[in-house]
Amino acid sequence: MEGSYKTFKHRIKVRYAETDQMGIVHHSNYIIYFEEARTAFMESIGKPYHEMEKNGILVVVVEAYVKYIKPARFGDELEISVRFERMGVRFRFYYEVFRGEEKVAEGYTTHVYTDRNLRVLRSI
Amino acid sequence: MEGSYKTFKHRIKVRYAETDQMGIVHHSNYIIYFEEARTAFMESIGKPYHEMEKNGILVVVVEAYVKYIKPARFGDELEISVRFERMGVRFRFYYEVFRGEEKVAEGYTTHVYTDRNLRVLRSI
Amino acid sequence: MEGSYKTFKHRIKVRYAETDQMGIVHHSNYIIYFEEARTAFMESIGKPYHEMEKNGILVVVVEAYVKYIKPARFGDELEISVRFERMGVRFRFYYEVFRGEEKVAEGYTTHVYTDRNLRVLRSI
Amino acid sequence: MEGSYKTFKHRIKVRYAETDQMGIVHHSNYIIYFEEARTAFMESIGKPYHEMEKNGILVVVVEAYVKYIKPARFGDELEISVRFERMGVRFRFYYEVFRGEEKVAEGYTTHVYTDRNLRVLRSI
Repeated sequence: MEGSYKTFKHRIKVRYAETDQMGIVHHSNYIIYFEEARTAFMESIGKPYHEMEKNGILVVVVEAYVKYIKPARFGDELEISVRFERMGVRFRFYYEVFRGEEKVAEGYTTHVYTDRNLRVLRSI
Repeated sequence: MEGSYKTFKHRIKVRYAETDQMGIVHHSNYIIYFEEARTAFMESIGKPYHEMEKNGILVVVVEAYVKYIKPARFGDELEISVRFERMGVRFRFYYEVFRGEEKVAEGYTTHVYTDRNLRVLRSI
Repeated sequence: MEGSYKTFKHRIKVRYAETDQMGIVHHSNYIIYFEEARTAFMESIGKPYHEMEKNGILVVVVEAYVKYIKPARFGDELEISVRFERMGVRFRFYYEVFRGEEKVAEGYTTHVYTDRNLRVLRSI
Repeated sequence: MEGSYKTFKHRIKVRYAETDQMGIVHHSNYIIYFEEARTAFMESIGKPYHEMEKNGILVVVVEAYVKYIKPARFGDELEISVRFERMGVRFRFYYEVFRGEEKVAEGYTTHVYTDRNLRVLRSI
């Protein structure tokens, strides 16, 4: 995964189904936004995730953290920046979610590579 | 699938994440409630779905219909009745969703059995 | 809602979270794809749905139907065409979901306008 | 919220829709399992969350963390223990997810009380 530390931006538009009765985006959806953003990031550096899986390499999540700063709402266009960092056999993606100039959320997900039987791969 | 036409009841409690900003259960969730109810139904007649899949038989959805009658809300306890009907190589589950005496929704899903490559099986 | 019968196309990219253990898009997601497509349609004709809601008009779903034709998969880019039809106090959106030339699914959703208390509005 | 530090257990059965193409529960669902478990916890101590909301008190999530230890699968019955801790104006729920004796995941969510306009309440 070349391009470590590179910052990548991905746009998302909030779906109605992602809101809850508080009138804001339900907090579970940020995990899915993060995933969509890192999928787009990996595609942008020439490693589309669906091709890695076809080759028998899975990217498994071992940790996820989200800090909710401002509520996002239906109709919002969000911009998610992604930064990648190696941590030995693990690696981490950092995310920042903006609506215009305003930071809405931030967080990270930590991952390992595994084979199809979910056994950790030391290197790929 | 013995027990055709038998009526089976399954209880569900509405999750907060299933609501939307209208303050009601988002309409996509009924498809998931139906699935949970038919999974419980199949288990009740001694054909747990996760064991069928282990044996290489998939139950693929070819059609789904929902009629929304009354809004359901967070905190509601819903009771879903399930009825099964053969239609040649296809088969259909009918669902009725109640909150107490009040019908909240109804619908059906139509299915075929397939192998792991999603090829339709004539009989199992 | 001017522009009745007009056909509109909306693109969606399948998210990883939308797949299930069959390796295909879980059938409940088409209901959400339909919603995203009709939201984009309404925006395209100058009636953004989030503004209607601010003005106290809700678009409530009273029926949904999906026919699943071919499985869609992670990484697929889908194109959803939307067509609108009045039916008295009700109205219906028809959807066709394509991956390239191949039709993946089709269906419709039927709606009414309501006020904030979910009382049906005869006209808006 | 009496009963602080009390440990509470809640059972969940994995839904088919919650799996992904890795054949395991998609990692976003643990956030929803946590929510269902803390909702049940609050009900168990006589503070059902849907009644708090009716009284104008919202429980807003400001942080969420999940550590994924073992994959969970369709058909699994999971037991989630919940522990509550005050942290000044904030409060935190800790969760441990077990399948039998085996720990599948753990994590926490941090919250504040707000009014209907999402303004933080110092005390309730």
